[in-house]
Parts: sequence; C-alpha cells; structure tokens
Amino acid sequence: MSSRRLLIIGGAAGPGLLGRFVALAGGPAARIVVIATASSSPSAAEAEFRAVFRDLGAGDVRALRLANRCEANRDQPLLRRATGVFFTGGDQERITRVIGGTSTDSLLHELTGTVIAGTSAGAAAMSGTMIVEGDARGITRASVRTGPGLEFLPGVLIDQHFAERGRVNRLLSAVALYPHELGLGIDEDTAILTDGDRFEVLGSGAVTVVDAGAATDIRVPAQGPITLTGARIHVLAAGHAFHLTGRRPVVDAPAVEREAA
Amino acid sequence: MSSRRLLIIGGAAGPGLLGRFVALAGGPAARIVVIATASSSPSAAEAEFRAVFRDLGAGDVRALRLANRCEANRDQPLLRRATGVFFTGGDQERITRVIGGTSTDSLLHELTGTVIAGTSAGAAAMSGTMIVEGDARGITRASVRTGPGLEFLPGVLIDQHFAERGRVNRLLSAVALYPHELGLGIDEDTAILTDGDRFEVLGSGAVTVVDAGAATDIRVPAQGPITLTGARIHVLAAGHAFHLTGRRPVVDAPAVEREAA
Repeated sequence: MSSRRLLIIGGAAGPGLLGRFVALAGGPAARIVVIATASSSPSAAEAEFRAVFRDLGAGDVRALRLANRCEANRDQPLLRRATGVFFTGGDQERITRVIGGTSTDSLLHELTGTVIAGTSAGAAAMSGTMIVEGDARGITRASVRTGPGLEFLPGVLIDQHFAERGRVNRLLSAVALYPHELGLGIDEDTAILTDGDRFEVLGSGAVTVVDAGAATDIRVPAQGPITLTGARIHVLAAGHAFHLTGRRPVVDAPAVEREAA
Repeated sequence: MSSRRLLIIGGAAGPGLLGRFVALAGGPAARIVVIATASSSPSAAEAEFRAVFRDLGAGDVRALRLANRCEANRDQPLLRRATGVFFTGGDQERITRVIGGTSTDSLLHELTGTVIAGTSAGAAAMSGTMIVEGDARGITRASVRTGPGLEFLPGVLIDQHFAERGRVNRLLSAVALYPHELGLGIDEDTAILTDGDRFEVLGSGAVTVVDAGAATDIRVPAQGPITLTGARIHVLAAGHAFHLTGRRPVVDAPAVEREAA
C-alpha cells in the first residue's frame, strides 16, 4: 500500500473540503496540478480551480491540459513533482477515453506521497468500476450503465451528487449486478479521504455504503425489477470511517452497543 | 390474527393489481366500498374507482362519503357487509383526521374476511407510523415528518411512489429515527398483499424493505446528516414474500445459497 491518498468528492465542494485538499498537498509548499479533461470547457474549469486553490493558500497551482491521448502519452514532468492532483467534473468517460492506459495513467498510479483528488465526474473515474449514467427510477438492469474506471480505488463503485440527485436506485442496481464491488454514494460537498485500507468521511453531507456482499439472494432479470435481499446499508456522516477490505464501518464511539449483524 | 387481508398499493395501480383486488373481494359476488376521504375531489375519485371496479367485474361497488368526523361516527351498514374496502389517494392526513378514532375506524379494525386496500395516501395511512411528508434530499432528522397511521399494519412505516419519487432518503431517515419500525417503500403499480404475518409482492415494480433493527450505530443530530450503520436492505420484485415478525425475506427458490447475515 503506497502512501498515496485519495480525496474523492461528490461534487459542489465548499472551501472546507478544497482547503483540506490544499493542506494535504502541503499548503504553501503545495504543487498542485489541475486536470480538467472531463470538462467540456477546460479553460474555464482550470481557471476556476487555479484561483480557488491559490486563494486557499496553495503555493503553486498549474493546469495540465490533456485533450487527447497523444498529449496523455507524453512525459509529464509537472505530474512527477506534484504534491496534489485534482480532477474536475464533467464527463467521466472523457477521462477514461483520453487518459486510460496512457503513460500519464501509469504515472498517476506510480505516484507516492501525492494526494489525488477528484470531484463529481473526477470522483466517478477514480473507482474500479465507474458509473457512467443511469437515471431510471426503478432498480433494474437498465437503471445503470457502468464501465471500467481508472482504478485508483479498486473494488468500489463510486456514485456522486448522491443524495441531491436521488441516485440510490442506480447504486443498488449496480451492486446487484456486481456484488463484489462495494457501492459508495457520495453527497455533494462531501468526500472520502483514503488512508490505506480505510476511508474517512469529510464534509457537510453523508456517504452511503451499499454492500451486497452479504446478500442472500440476487435476481437480475433481463427486464423488470431486480430482487436483492440481505444487502447492508451504512449512512456515514463526517468523522466516521469505513474499512474497505473488512467491509465494516468504523464509528468513533458507538451510541448503540450491539453485536454486528 | 384475523383473516382480514390488506392490499397496500404504491400508487398508479394498473388493471392487474386492481383486478386482483376485485378477485380477492369476491369478483361478481364482491361488495366493494370506496372511501375517497383522502382526495380533494372525492366525487371524481369515487366515480373513477366505481367505474374501474365495475369494469373489472365487481358485483357491487359503492362509495362511502366520509367528509367529517360526524359522518365517520355514524353506523356504517355498508361497511359491515363489505367484502372489500378501497382507500383512494390524496392526503393521508385527511384520512387520519376524519376517520382516526371514530366508530368507522373501530369497525374497520373489527372486519374479518374483508380485504382492505389503499393506494398512495390510502397506503400510507394503513401503516402503524405514517410518513406524512418530506422531500429533502439528504438523510437528516428534517428529511421526513411522520405521524401515527390507522395501524391496519402495525410495526411498519409505509412509503409509496417509492422509486418514482426517489424516496429512499426519507425512508432511511424515518427508520433511523424509529428503528423498531420496518420501512416499506412501495413502487407505483406495485403492492404488498398481507397474509397473517407475511406479505407477498405483486405488480410491476419492487418493494424495498429497510430494516434498521440490525443497525449497529445510529446517530441523529438535531441538524446535519444522520449516521446509520449496519442496516439491512431488501429489494423484492413480484412473487417474493417477506416475513414481518421475523424481518426476513422469503424468496421462492434461492438463486444464491448462503447463510442469512
């Protein structure tokens, strides 16, 4: 396990979360690289986050424009010396389409001591399996479309803008299809910060963890509603943590003492 | 346990579900009473369901207009001989405000051999604790407002139009507040049909059961996000059942054999 940390934000981050990113990257000593590949207006997104991170006291903030795979296959000295990398929102498939499998992708995986952050689409792309789209209301095979993510955090499916866009149905659909993947639904202005095999919840909302690993029965018909019994759900506010491999919440001091189910 | 059966519909019922109600009530021998107290246009709702149930082959269909508590405290010979009672949608608090605690309420609880059905608000009012309103997106104390229901089905919180209106957050909020109540989220054109201590799922959608009984930790701050860990969630499509007292799904033939968590 490298000392690389991930800060995965559910969108619409306020100064508290973005300031935490700057601090993790080193504050006045930070060298932050903004990657706006997901955005359809990368110049605007780059300018926005450069200004925000500088206002929050980051020493050095630069944008790395990766508009195509050719650019993503060049050497990236900026990234090699970065202490923080930030993926903006937009379309998560632009990230995987442009960066996936390139030398930049490899370099990002090799970085140690760097905090890699992503918000919205930038968060979705960091998971092992990425939720691409899906806004059907029911819990069905058609309710969600997934694809491989960049796998900074393998073994999980990340959804974002979670409470705000009422996305639990697509996360339930996804874990019914892939029960080996842990479903993480991250609210806006909320994030998970990884530390090895654990993550901590930060921000003003909650992280909903859907664990179909314990499910006793899963039926996914070609059409119509999914059946999924015995799944576990955890809603975690800021300050609480989760152990990924153990698939268990770590709550600071249990208010209700009871044997875990 | 009486032989009374409950058909609790999540709204927008198609002819399949309404036909099942007519059949349960006796088909050509049925004596159905429609109660449109929840509706702000009771005449229209009464006319609609009288026509629908007659078209579906019900022998006798009548409306019982209960507009105030005075009417609800009169003797109800129509109800005494009913084989089926149907509560329309509208505002669930109108049902409890007009009928709750009246002689009609008592009579409805004493009926045996009668199927009592409700759709939408009529479904919400049948539960022990009724979800009155709540459309906040997060999982917080303020996300849901509840009140006592008519308690045809005690021990449960019923939410309706469940998938269609993305209501899992308010159901999760409600069971975090009241973990002794089982949360039932019923989709549109979907119903539960009770049979003693069990219910079966009918219709085109699913019933989502949220069980906070197994929760290991529940924190409900005055403001901000709730923390709820170790809750169980079951998504049940038509044909599957649930044992209420045992809080366990009964799936017809397990596709995945595993010890229940």
